[in-house]
Amino acid sequence: MNYNRLTSKHKNSLREMVSKDRFSTGESNLNLHSKDQSHHPPSMPEAVIWPVDRFEVSEILKYANKNLIPITGWGSGSSLEGNPIPVRGGIVLDFSQMNRIIDIREKDFQADVEPGVIYQDLNEKLKYSGLFFPPDPGARATIGGIIANNSSGTRTVHYGSAKDYVMRLSVVLADGSYIKTGTRASKTSSGYDLIHLLVGSEGTLGIVVEATLKLTGLPQELSAAIATFPNITDAGKAVYQIRRYGLDPAALELLSTECIELINNKKGLGLTAAPTLFIEFHGPSVTYLSEALKMAQEICNDSGCTEFRSGLGRDERDRLFEARHELAEMIFQNHPDCNVQILDVAVPITGYTSMISKAREITDAAGLTGYALSHAGDGNIHLCLAGKKGNRKDWDLIDKISHEMVAEALSLGGTATGEHGVGIGKKQYMADEHGDSLEWMKKIKKLFDPNHILNPGKMF
Amino acid sequence: MNYNRLTSKHKNSLREMVSKDRFSTGESNLNLHSKDQSHHPPSMPEAVIWPVDRFEVSEILKYANKNLIPITGWGSGSSLEGNPIPVRGGIVLDFSQMNRIIDIREKDFQADVEPGVIYQDLNEKLKYSGLFFPPDPGARATIGGIIANNSSGTRTVHYGSAKDYVMRLSVVLADGSYIKTGTRASKTSSGYDLIHLLVGSEGTLGIVVEATLKLTGLPQELSAAIATFPNITDAGKAVYQIRRYGLDPAALELLSTECIELINNKKGLGLTAAPTLFIEFHGPSVTYLSEALKMAQEICNDSGCTEFRSGLGRDERDRLFEARHELAEMIFQNHPDCNVQILDVAVPITGYTSMISKAREITDAAGLTGYALSHAGDGNIHLCLAGKKGNRKDWDLIDKISHEMVAEALSLGGTATGEHGVGIGKKQYMADEHGDSLEWMKKIKKLFDPNHILNPGKMF
Repeated sequence: MNYNRLTSKHKNSLREMVSKDRFSTGESNLNLHSKDQSHHPPSMPEAVIWPVDRFEVSEILKYANKNLIPITGWGSGSSLEGNPIPVRGGIVLDFSQMNRIIDIREKDFQADVEPGVIYQDLNEKLKYSGLFFPPDPGARATIGGIIANNSSGTRTVHYGSAKDYVMRLSVVLADGSYIKTGTRASKTSSGYDLIHLLVGSEGTLGIVVEATLKLTGLPQELSAAIATFPNITDAGKAVYQIRRYGLDPAALELLSTECIELINNKKGLGLTAAPTLFIEFHGPSVTYLSEALKMAQEICNDSGCTEFRSGLGRDERDRLFEARHELAEMIFQNHPDCNVQILDVAVPITGYTSMISKAREITDAAGLTGYALSHAGDGNIHLCLAGKKGNRKDWDLIDKISHEMVAEALSLGGTATGEHGVGIGKKQYMADEHGDSLEWMKKIKKLFDPNHILNPGKMF
Repeated sequence: MNYNRLTSKHKNSLREMVSKDRFSTGESNLNLHSKDQSHHPPSMPEAVIWPVDRFEVSEILKYANKNLIPITGWGSGSSLEGNPIPVRGGIVLDFSQMNRIIDIREKDFQADVEPGVIYQDLNEKLKYSGLFFPPDPGARATIGGIIANNSSGTRTVHYGSAKDYVMRLSVVLADGSYIKTGTRASKTSSGYDLIHLLVGSEGTLGIVVEATLKLTGLPQELSAAIATFPNITDAGKAVYQIRRYGLDPAALELLSTECIELINNKKGLGLTAAPTLFIEFHGPSVTYLSEALKMAQEICNDSGCTEFRSGLGRDERDRLFEARHELAEMIFQNHPDCNVQILDVAVPITGYTSMISKAREITDAAGLTGYALSHAGDGNIHLCLAGKKGNRKDWDLIDKISHEMVAEALSLGGTATGEHGVGIGKKQYMADEHGDSLEWMKKIKKLFDPNHILNPGKMF
């Protein structure tokens, strides 16, 4: 697709669509919107616009569509596959000023929000209602970004992904037209499910300007445990057995020795430096939780666990999960001269042990420092590899490892991307993963966005 | 769309694609495939074919597409909105011979099945693994039909609908091409979600020839209760309060007096003839269940409950839910000279009380016998109205009531169809419910099935 570069005429027209202070071509703004938290190389947009309502979004898209100008939506830039990097230039739409929590309907377990709302802010506001929005990708992700990437996180093993929490969407399409889709009823079998088509489409089919989210009740009780293992394979076996015996953890995270050492270092948690499971249960009563933890302990012991600390209270649990959420950032800081690739694959749970062992094995063989952290209960594995910036040898090796990991995940019936989306990094695996159905995804893209102005260079 | 009637040449060609005994133009077979369990008038297909594998389905669709012959998929004919009635004639594909349970991967909580599998048969086979497939639309629905209509049922309030249990689909498209979509990993954010686009599309976008289903663990303990109320409005209030206080029933069904009388009559259950809630909890322990039931009892009492029978065991509970599942059939039998319309709408839970009261009110005002039965916990209401076959006055009245009920549901932010699909009966409400997004559904239909051969006359 041949896009037009922004001319002065374009810029003047666009500037007039919004107030002057919400249109920028300033270097620092362009810079800020040229990169996300991934290792993918930055690419500058030609302008950044901060819309405040759907009418502005419509007008901008209509204009961009007519003038063949790329449009890339922007939440907080916390994504990990280059999803919002404007690789073809054009306009970045930054939604930080569309961040109103429009309505909380506590009694219906629903909230209407704009895409720029930070999910932690929503949960903070919901705190006293006893409700929350479960997907927790970490960082300060926005609802718009969470919807675009079908994000999930540590609680997905019990609560599900973003796709399970979106009831209604208001969307501006490529030509500037506006649709509302979905229902406020808790279930429907009316018409095609456009909601799920849009969730996870990474802003390539339309731009979400409002969402009705399903909320759920905060757990009545919670309790957590830490289990330490002599090696990552034994830890992986425990994960599989916990799932296999039908225990229903609210979080089941596996961290490699390198991760634990880093956490100890930065947070002084004094954990045993070995492969470690964080296990959390949510439940209706203390009795229920202690039963679940007891079963988890038995399973871990049978899998070779060397240390099991149970019954962690809310404070200690919060410190652990805070550290878990900050881990990516800690890894970045630990390698200031490097870029870090956070590989994201997911496999059926029977494949988990072999997948996590393979990660260990190929990282060791390559002589690299690899941080394996994983939403283990979902069979979702992240392998973080640091490569010196611009060092061809490092990055060839990292690419090779990525290919091997993805190939292994796909051969086990899994996916090339569990929660980070396709973005730039996973495009190359789409054909292998989706086969002939990829052509239909492309046809849908063409139907919704015939000029390919929406987030070009991603997904396909 | 102008379709071609089947000529002898067509029939000969089609007969050659399958074995002789699996192609029929016999009157009784055409008759059997001309109607479902709804009140919608029958319409005869021109031929019925029983395919046994995807290759046959491909060949038939390719031929039908080239020759403009309508194709309608058929499960067990248990749907309630005329969804599989071949209103434009053509070929019915009956999937009763594609009913293999191909693989049960217990350890991954997954099963691969063909579309003709009856869901109860799958659950029977799963029994000893401690797993089950939760959607339970009743009747002897097939997995293909359940997927096509995004069916749900009595357990949806806790376990979700069909859409929450489909991981991977193999589909033959209108032109005979074959795609596989989805993953066996428990989560993914790779590419567009074609799974959810196909689930609930009522066989208008493609024909499912194999599905990977997610399974879930059978509850460790269950307990049920029956609560009787002086009127339907008070019962509705109790439903709302149970949801509002975050209780998590596995079933929360509301039956009107007429339903209870019918059940007593046919099954001799001796229930008090009054609006009645069936409440069921699934949980990890007996203690948990008794706590939940105690809270439910308090809420019911506060809402005016006159009788609360708690702690029903598995046998008594099974009898109740068996009666509940057979209710539609009982209603049909109770009115042998009538057709019965089973209206299906769903609203956000805050609208439930007013919706159920309105159903009572307008049925009484019309002087009709109305059976209100509802998956109350989902805000999903069924109103069954019997009208003498061919009696214009009865059916004008029933149509009027339906319009009022749907209009009320939509005005409350709900849906014209909670679980029965659009079929024939709900087409007229699609524009009101979906607004401008309906055009995009039509565009998707045209993309997947440009000749409109798949289940024509439905959905739009």
